[in-house]
Amino acid sequence: MSDLSVDIERIKKDILDLAKIGYEERDRGIYRQAFSDRDMEAKHWLLHRIEECDLTTGTDGAANISGILEGKEDSPRVFVGSHIDTVPCAGMFDGTLGVVVGLECLRVLRASGLSLEKTIELIAFSDEEGRFGGTFGSEAFTGLLTLEKLRSASDLSGIPLQEAMLEHGLDPMKALDARRLPDEIDSYLELHIEQGPVLDEQHLQVGIVESITGLQSWSLRFDGEANHAGTTPMDYRKDAFMGLADFAHEVPRILEENGGENSRATIGNAEILPGAPNSVPGAVEFSLDFRDPSTETLEQLSHAFQKAIAAISRRRGLKFEIHLQGEILPVESDERLTGILKEEAERLNLRHMTMLSGAAHDAQLVGRIAPMAMIFVPSRKGLSHSPDEWTPWEDIEAGANLMLAALCKLAG
Amino acid sequence: MSDLSVDIERIKKDILDLAKIGYEERDRGIYRQAFSDRDMEAKHWLLHRIEECDLTTGTDGAANISGILEGKEDSPRVFVGSHIDTVPCAGMFDGTLGVVVGLECLRVLRASGLSLEKTIELIAFSDEEGRFGGTFGSEAFTGLLTLEKLRSASDLSGIPLQEAMLEHGLDPMKALDARRLPDEIDSYLELHIEQGPVLDEQHLQVGIVESITGLQSWSLRFDGEANHAGTTPMDYRKDAFMGLADFAHEVPRILEENGGENSRATIGNAEILPGAPNSVPGAVEFSLDFRDPSTETLEQLSHAFQKAIAAISRRRGLKFEIHLQGEILPVESDERLTGILKEEAERLNLRHMTMLSGAAHDAQLVGRIAPMAMIFVPSRKGLSHSPDEWTPWEDIEAGANLMLAALCKLAG
Repeated sequence: MSDLSVDIERIKKDILDLAKIGYEERDRGIYRQAFSDRDMEAKHWLLHRIEECDLTTGTDGAANISGILEGKEDSPRVFVGSHIDTVPCAGMFDGTLGVVVGLECLRVLRASGLSLEKTIELIAFSDEEGRFGGTFGSEAFTGLLTLEKLRSASDLSGIPLQEAMLEHGLDPMKALDARRLPDEIDSYLELHIEQGPVLDEQHLQVGIVESITGLQSWSLRFDGEANHAGTTPMDYRKDAFMGLADFAHEVPRILEENGGENSRATIGNAEILPGAPNSVPGAVEFSLDFRDPSTETLEQLSHAFQKAIAAISRRRGLKFEIHLQGEILPVESDERLTGILKEEAERLNLRHMTMLSGAAHDAQLVGRIAPMAMIFVPSRKGLSHSPDEWTPWEDIEAGANLMLAALCKLAG
Repeated sequence: MSDLSVDIERIKKDILDLAKIGYEERDRGIYRQAFSDRDMEAKHWLLHRIEECDLTTGTDGAANISGILEGKEDSPRVFVGSHIDTVPCAGMFDGTLGVVVGLECLRVLRASGLSLEKTIELIAFSDEEGRFGGTFGSEAFTGLLTLEKLRSASDLSGIPLQEAMLEHGLDPMKALDARRLPDEIDSYLELHIEQGPVLDEQHLQVGIVESITGLQSWSLRFDGEANHAGTTPMDYRKDAFMGLADFAHEVPRILEENGGENSRATIGNAEILPGAPNSVPGAVEFSLDFRDPSTETLEQLSHAFQKAIAAISRRRGLKFEIHLQGEILPVESDERLTGILKEEAERLNLRHMTMLSGAAHDAQLVGRIAPMAMIFVPSRKGLSHSPDEWTPWEDIEAGANLMLAALCKLAG
């Protein structure tokens, strides 16, 4: 096999250069939301850097950015990528690291003069983070983008996706032409920060992702009766918030009874109405996010959560509503790809483990139509979506060398 | 005894006339917050009506409005009153009913030609509802108003109390001159809607209030760790909201162990930070309002709540903060006054009960320095602070006749 290795100093420089685009001094966060001026600036930066590396640039109708290292065969391509858009007040690694590492791998391969069989294409997908709903670029790439989403998506301030694209000279309808067919894709690899605490806590360098969890995102509401907190005896109350407290207490039981070790459930937001300290809560709106790598388990959890909500409503004289806000299907990594990653991690003497991804990624979309695997590197204290996001450079180097080795094997 | 009785049609007319001042069509609510233009309009309406009833008008430094029916003796006065300011989007009875009924009683007594021994003074207190903190007029009246409150009070939009008073030509410092001394007050009676469901559920006409509960209002905060809802295993979490859910579940136990049948506790508001559906809650700020007619019980409840908060914090690895936002001491009604009310209710064949007030009232302040009692009339379904607030006119008539009879006895 190749004894090529990445140059961590070049990775570092690219990461730090990109971190300047959208940086805000006030909170030391990066603001590079999809199709903003800063996101477009970063896309141009990337195109320019790809050119400097003597690679062929490309861009599709979804404004996904590509860097292409041609192989000898006209065969399905090996893809490597991630995204460079960010959440508001982001750190510098989420998404960006996968793109920069992919670029470094292609740079090393180009400079090595090695003649690869298969073409390798670096791809930076648009709007993974969700200014307009998320995984826009990878949905377009896989053909999973719908005309309906294209037409209806808008950001939190009400700006339509179409308007944001047009403002930068992009024709929104062309996003539907970005589709690649499954037989054009040999494989897709993505390196990403873990965004969880496991690798950091266990002092490991890389994680090999065997599956990406599916998730359901619900919005729920209990309606009771708003009443005066002083004049309403406890047993006359229909306190909507106490319904939520009951439900929160059922969550661990429901996970234990119906889930597995990789199940997660989170009540991340709640709003009480009227929300006055001296009013018994008349209504509460809240979110429930639950995840598992198994579709069957997700269904069992869904069923159990619904039963609990209904039972609590009956017990407390409340009414309830449940709305499915979003659903992402779980995806398994490709066994051939994870096999290669495990072998190469052994060969490189990396401290590694297999794991699952609890977060959604572009790889989850690509995995629906083609073989996919992911490499995780540690997130210090599990932090992400924060300026405090951090991964040690030596772990990045380890992960990048694993990516390079895997690309050599796949394309070689 | 007198066989005088009130004229419910006059009460009805006054209530409906006052309900026009501050009425908003959009939500059918009354907006007559203290020291607003509408509140001042209502104060002028009241002064004018008092004059029409051939009573002496008065107004003090806190803009409390008085109507005086002189008695023969220069002795401590019998007071009857409540307030005419409202919460935003109010109904037409809260506070206003007590003032209108008091006015009707004085009107009947004036017209009767009866010669009373003691002077009766109707008083409408300023800002009971709390635009600037609440019970402003009765604090000034009892000498419990502090210079500090006078200087620092402001409304939710940041307008200082002093500015609001000056705008209407009122000198704020004069509020400190509104004080009456205990030996100027023979007694204080207040008729008010119950604002709770008890009389309505039990089909009673009047309640005779034997005590007004005290309350403590806390703001609390749990701090944990905000994390990604997908990537953070359940047992790595420091979920601040789950701390609140634990606490909510302890509330019934704490009331059972440390409180009595009149204890209440309410978590009326909660805000989760960051409050994203896909983030484990890093912090939660919430309110706790608890009430009891006994000072000792309030202390025991306070102690038990603090222990629970501390124990939950330890168990879940959270930090906590507790701030006392407000405290109102419980007050007992005067036994002579409740004795008179019970006797007269029997004599008038009213369906009545003795009860406690779970809400705070101007009577709670006056009760700190002089004999006090209250008459409650039913609130349909316990509703108040709502345009749907309703009390049947026949119950108002019953309550007003009880007030009239009691005033005759006290002043006669």
